[in-house]
Amino acid sequence: MIINKPYLLFLGDAPDQLAAKTADGIAYWRRNDCLGQLRLKNCNADLGLPELNIAEAIKLGARTLIIGVANRGGCISDSWLPHLKEALNSGMDIASGLHKRLSDIEELASLAKSRGRSLFDVRHPTEDFPVGNGRRRAGKRLLTVGTDCSVGKMYAALAIEQEMKRRGLAADFRATGQTGILIAGSGVSIDAVVSDFISGAVEAISPNQAPNHWDIIEGQGSLYHPSYAGVSLGLLHGAQADALVMCHEPTRKHMRGVPEYPLPSIEECIAANETAAKLTNTAARCIGISINTFALQETEALKLLQETENRIGLPCVDAVRTGVTRIVDNLVS
Amino acid sequence: MIINKPYLLFLGDAPDQLAAKTADGIAYWRRNDCLGQLRLKNCNADLGLPELNIAEAIKLGARTLIIGVANRGGCISDSWLPHLKEALNSGMDIASGLHKRLSDIEELASLAKSRGRSLFDVRHPTEDFPVGNGRRRAGKRLLTVGTDCSVGKMYAALAIEQEMKRRGLAADFRATGQTGILIAGSGVSIDAVVSDFISGAVEAISPNQAPNHWDIIEGQGSLYHPSYAGVSLGLLHGAQADALVMCHEPTRKHMRGVPEYPLPSIEECIAANETAAKLTNTAARCIGISINTFALQETEALKLLQETENRIGLPCVDAVRTGVTRIVDNLVS
Repeated sequence: MIINKPYLLFLGDAPDQLAAKTADGIAYWRRNDCLGQLRLKNCNADLGLPELNIAEAIKLGARTLIIGVANRGGCISDSWLPHLKEALNSGMDIASGLHKRLSDIEELASLAKSRGRSLFDVRHPTEDFPVGNGRRRAGKRLLTVGTDCSVGKMYAALAIEQEMKRRGLAADFRATGQTGILIAGSGVSIDAVVSDFISGAVEAISPNQAPNHWDIIEGQGSLYHPSYAGVSLGLLHGAQADALVMCHEPTRKHMRGVPEYPLPSIEECIAANETAAKLTNTAARCIGISINTFALQETEALKLLQETENRIGLPCVDAVRTGVTRIVDNLVS
Repeated sequence: MIINKPYLLFLGDAPDQLAAKTADGIAYWRRNDCLGQLRLKNCNADLGLPELNIAEAIKLGARTLIIGVANRGGCISDSWLPHLKEALNSGMDIASGLHKRLSDIEELASLAKSRGRSLFDVRHPTEDFPVGNGRRRAGKRLLTVGTDCSVGKMYAALAIEQEMKRRGLAADFRATGQTGILIAGSGVSIDAVVSDFISGAVEAISPNQAPNHWDIIEGQGSLYHPSYAGVSLGLLHGAQADALVMCHEPTRKHMRGVPEYPLPSIEECIAANETAAKLTNTAARCIGISINTFALQETEALKLLQETENRIGLPCVDAVRTGVTRIVDNLVS
């Protein structure tokens, strides 16, 4: 699955900026892939991109309309349909990370078919993956892992890819969640893969590479999350990571969605991930920590990063606030 | 999903006894649920059950025809179809653990629909499961775990259920694989569940129970298998096991299907499972070991069991050769 770029980002009638966070992520990490934004009346999100209608976007070379807004329930609004049909009629593909499939909407499915266009429902894998084989692959791999879900694993991975590319190193972000897939234009929504094939799917998206090439793989969940640890472990084994980066959110009161479960310490979470990772790569080690300090004031944030670094002895950054140069320094040293 | 009993076991044209191992397992563990066997010409498997045609089975009260034979590729032979259609026409449901779905065969699907019969493709879950919530449930749970795949986890679980029932204890086998589901008449093929829902599916099949009731849950895979460890971990967390029983096959040269991967020692595998299990049940502990000594001579087998027991300090049995009374003794002591 390869989603063609450049994109037109569809924000629909997003009630606020948060509802357009998928589009926000794409515009933040792949500004050059985004020709503009298409907003309906009542849209309260704004990415600061040029306002384009579909005809204008086509004229500029747009290949794919990205649904960059999430509705309650992950549905596709009726009010979006005329625009989606116009996009298909004009020669664009459509990609969506919503739960509800574009391909389940009969009028979109039949129109796409008759026009020879593709509908990408990136939350729902369509490929068949083999069972993981555990065989070592050439090239190097970094995986972001976490003390919990939604602690910044995708952002950390994208920041590391960006910094490595800035230094002229060979690195590619490998997406395992829907926003990441739309950013990268490919990948697999790993938590939607049938469980027999978790590690096989990760092996497939981070295949053999040149010896100095780094795949920077987006992690999911946490080994300490009672709902999702199986996904995290299969991802860890399939990645055969040489390097792990531990991600953490310091204001979290309990594991996301399960109030009975406290967060692990960063130290024990690193130890558990290193131990499990060594099954498929005995050289696996954690090479840095990324803490999402968004909820903290600057002074407090920097103090926390420094204290954590002193305590654990690994570079400790905030991928957004401080950047990841020190993690990449440690990676290539 | 509840598969109605009693069963007629369909052995088709099984070339040998091994090809009918699904039926073999059902007849071994649930003899009283099996009215008889239906064998085609050239069938070389024999369960020692009464030979019945469909009309005779119906007369005796048969509710479901079980496809108890595996073809190469998990397909459904054309030569089986007349018999499957006769079963539906006569008022029986059909259940299959094959990869190929009964419901994908148009003439069976439409006939079943018009006759109001059910087709159970137990390898393919049809229910939607919630994400695991990790909340403690009433009742007690035992999970069989393993050093590798295919080391006797289902047999050990069924033997423990049988021994507990013999003692008048409240116990129910909970199936997580296709043969287990056909034996129990319900369950979920856990490796076919979408990975986000592994632990949720296990929570669903082993729900709240009376305080003294034991669910005896069939394990899958191994935390040390690079292809399937994610499934095993999700299963372990969803089970919230109070008691673990470690299963092992002593002649295995490497992890099944992956020659590069050596087996873990029983000791380290117990430690890893106990550590991981404690996330959702801090009281989790391994209470016994079941070694599949089928490939060994009697003297050698008993020596191995005794040596392992002396070394590790837990009851060590072969669920088939010696029975599991000593594990159940330890469980209820």
